Amino acid sequence: MKEKLEELKTILAEVDDISRAVAIANWDLETYMPPGGAEGRGNIVATLSRMAQETFTSEKVGGLLDELMPFATELDKDSDDARIITETKRQYEKLVKVPAEMVGERAQLRAVGNPAWRESREKSDYSIFKPHLEKMLDWVQRYADLFKPYDHIYDPLLDDYEANMKTVEVQETFDTIRPQQVELIEAIAAAEQVDDSFLHQAFEEDKQRQFGKEVVGAIGFDFERGREDKVTHPFATNLGYGDQRITVRMGDDFFNPYLFGALHEAGHGMYEQGISKDLARTSLYTGTSLGIHESQSRMWENLVGRSKPFWDHYYPRLQELFPSQLGNVSVDDFYKGINIVKPSFIRVEADEATYNLHIMLRMEIEIALLEGSLSVDDLPEYWNTKFEEYLGITPDNDADGVLQDVHWSFGLYGYFSTYALGNLISVQLWEKVKEDIPDLEAKVGNAEFKPLLTWMNEKIHVHGSKFPPQELMQRVTGSGIDGTAYISYLKTKYGDIYNL
Amino acid sequence: MKEKLEELKTILAEVDDISRAVAIANWDLETYMPPGGAEGRGNIVATLSRMAQETFTSEKVGGLLDELMPFATELDKDSDDARIITETKRQYEKLVKVPAEMVGERAQLRAVGNPAWRESREKSDYSIFKPHLEKMLDWVQRYADLFKPYDHIYDPLLDDYEANMKTVEVQETFDTIRPQQVELIEAIAAAEQVDDSFLHQAFEEDKQRQFGKEVVGAIGFDFERGREDKVTHPFATNLGYGDQRITVRMGDDFFNPYLFGALHEAGHGMYEQGISKDLARTSLYTGTSLGIHESQSRMWENLVGRSKPFWDHYYPRLQELFPSQLGNVSVDDFYKGINIVKPSFIRVEADEATYNLHIMLRMEIEIALLEGSLSVDDLPEYWNTKFEEYLGITPDNDADGVLQDVHWSFGLYGYFSTYALGNLISVQLWEKVKEDIPDLEAKVGNAEFKPLLTWMNEKIHVHGSKFPPQELMQRVTGSGIDGTAYISYLKTKYGDIYNL
Repeated sequence: MKEKLEELKTILAEVDDISRAVAIANWDLETYMPPGGAEGRGNIVATLSRMAQETFTSEKVGGLLDELMPFATELDKDSDDARIITETKRQYEKLVKVPAEMVGERAQLRAVGNPAWRESREKSDYSIFKPHLEKMLDWVQRYADLFKPYDHIYDPLLDDYEANMKTVEVQETFDTIRPQQVELIEAIAAAEQVDDSFLHQAFEEDKQRQFGKEVVGAIGFDFERGREDKVTHPFATNLGYGDQRITVRMGDDFFNPYLFGALHEAGHGMYEQGISKDLARTSLYTGTSLGIHESQSRMWENLVGRSKPFWDHYYPRLQELFPSQLGNVSVDDFYKGINIVKPSFIRVEADEATYNLHIMLRMEIEIALLEGSLSVDDLPEYWNTKFEEYLGITPDNDADGVLQDVHWSFGLYGYFSTYALGNLISVQLWEKVKEDIPDLEAKVGNAEFKPLLTWMNEKIHVHGSKFPPQELMQRVTGSGIDGTAYISYLKTKYGDIYNL
Repeated sequence: MKEKLEELKTILAEVDDISRAVAIANWDLETYMPPGGAEGRGNIVATLSRMAQETFTSEKVGGLLDELMPFATELDKDSDDARIITETKRQYEKLVKVPAEMVGERAQLRAVGNPAWRESREKSDYSIFKPHLEKMLDWVQRYADLFKPYDHIYDPLLDDYEANMKTVEVQETFDTIRPQQVELIEAIAAAEQVDDSFLHQAFEEDKQRQFGKEVVGAIGFDFERGREDKVTHPFATNLGYGDQRITVRMGDDFFNPYLFGALHEAGHGMYEQGISKDLARTSLYTGTSLGIHESQSRMWENLVGRSKPFWDHYYPRLQELFPSQLGNVSVDDFYKGINIVKPSFIRVEADEATYNLHIMLRMEIEIALLEGSLSVDDLPEYWNTKFEEYLGITPDNDADGVLQDVHWSFGLYGYFSTYALGNLISVQLWEKVKEDIPDLEAKVGNAEFKPLLTWMNEKIHVHGSKFPPQELMQRVTGSGIDGTAYISYLKTKYGDIYNL
């Protein structure tokens, strides 16, 4: 059986190598590729993606897994080997259920639907995207139905990003926190407002970058095993063991996009940098779910990067770099400014207090569309009504409303939820860290980030995908994903800032 | 048969996609990869290279070629389809002759021998590299023997870089020009020397780069379909249709390395940019041989970039950028300075007049080693004796002598010759261009490079690997590769500069 396992691992290593080559090609596409390369690069990525999929879903792998599954039960169930077998089996079973024609069909729908969405958004004309949305929705419904029986049609979709998680778990969690978040932002709206105008002025790009790299290096992103490059839409990607790339967006007339984006992507990057080398080139060599991943990015972006102790330490340095912009702004005002709460239309620009509401709206819409209780025709109006209900404002047009996100044009349903889950998890973990490191905030105020990172390394990162998200949370915190800590974090933080 | 051909093309497209992914991974490795990525990248490149080779040498491809070869004879023999079949067949037959174990063995020898060579050169201690050189030489001899019967053991090696070319052709060519080059440099040594001290001073990197990019763009390198990045050892690489990368080395205390290197790599790049899109993702989608490739790089580097008309046009701009360095240097002195002839030990730093002698020495050594008339023990002494004979100087140590090049540690025999062939071909083509564009030099003096590039596009580039090098030269110039024009070019140019 040891030999069979080695055989499986050899194939998984090949699959991983091919997938990393795709990641390299995609990273280059977003960072440095000249415009002329688009068509050729599309072919390269398509061919390699197909090869990775074909290799992973081959009968060879299926046979090995059948032989190895009984063996896995003889192993320590938390050993790398046992988990490699069972997690590979889980992924394999999902993938082989999808006929090759359906994979091809989705590629087609994306190739046509994504440009249509782009045009639709540019013209703020929903009718352009509508037929494509309808076709993709039909595909997604048929995809979900491949995994029948299910408790809920949304389950197999969510499961693609949060293994083993159920729709009802997420719904219950969101239902508990939503009214409290709505109430909080209503209270904030009624309070004295914060001024953040000093953030909206010219900040020299090179100095922003210098400061950002100092900070990203200080929190623990390892530049010997990674790098940071500029792009239009930031992301983080793991190009193989010891090579983690993060990307950032520069804005020279607004302070926030670069620095907080860099901290966010560094959070993703440090998760991947922390995975055990033993798991490299296996099916476990990646963060375990998008929600857990997002917990890491949001933790460094918000719980550290938007905290008072952090700026008590770093603000003098920032003032030194930007004396004309920030010389006369106090650290208190700066702290309030970067934490301003202001309901707005665009999710990616949303503050901490409103962000989850953007997500919940999307999840409800996805479920209603999939269940058939909402029609594609009625979607824009439904969006606007719900938006007003949760955030108190109504989008002026569909470009700033239902058309703002790329996800649905790619058929990504279930994906949005993970952004909000990440917020909740980040605070749940933070509370747990404080049990082990009671002076955590003082350490942050002293720019001592190592204890925090080490804790995350040991409890979360090192395991890669060994434990599905809810199991990991149980192991680490003693309970599943839960919004209580997040709500109380929001209430304390914004109660303070807005004198509620 | 059309269907069989389409089947073959589909597989060739996959092979090309995989190979380009390897090229992307290698480009990134040389340009931006953080140090930690080395091991992982090695795995990715090894896996994908093996997959490309396995796909290309599969029985499937063999069967298709067997069926298609008769069909090829029914087609116009110069059609893309006929040449795709016959050239694929040629490559296929060579590759399937090499047992998988021998491929693995070479990878092993390289993995051990290359670091040994590096250490050997650093310490200038030949004994460290010697046993590895011996083993690799043995491998190369066995490799060549796979292709018996041959006229000469060097033939199958040379053929890897110059399809269908014979050792005796190269030997005859080199034998004709060598004494004339030796005589020329002796005459130059006896003449009044040129001063190039003004090139050895600080030139600001950003201004060098600015000038270089202006010039590289002006000669016709298309930055919409390519880009230029910094590396330690420059190269050019085609990452797929419409995406040609060139790389450069910056030296801020010597003018030459960057600019002439950039022109050189741009020459390679423009060759690849000029290949017909119809050949993309086929076995013909690359320059036809290293020699023809080198003719393009050397043409732009030397025949254009080190010519008087070129600097009559560009020198004022250069002086404007570097007033303190070049303000008092006349264009005549500058022209002479960048064309200084000075026998030196290191091939990659050699001037036009001495360069080929470095190459001929290496080719003679390779042949003597392969034939067994020279032993690995006697190699350093043989090197030094020959070096004195050709260049009039003797290396002080082996690091600056026999250990200077990486090639032998990789088992690359036959490769060096192509550098000198490139020089000869560049002038042969240049003479031919002048028949069609009689005022070519005046056009260069006017920075009108388009007619020259168009000529190369139409006669050379567009064909990719459709025609092997000697056949291509016959088609374009009416004769095979020949050194006569090159010698007369050298005599005229340096006769002028050195008042011979």
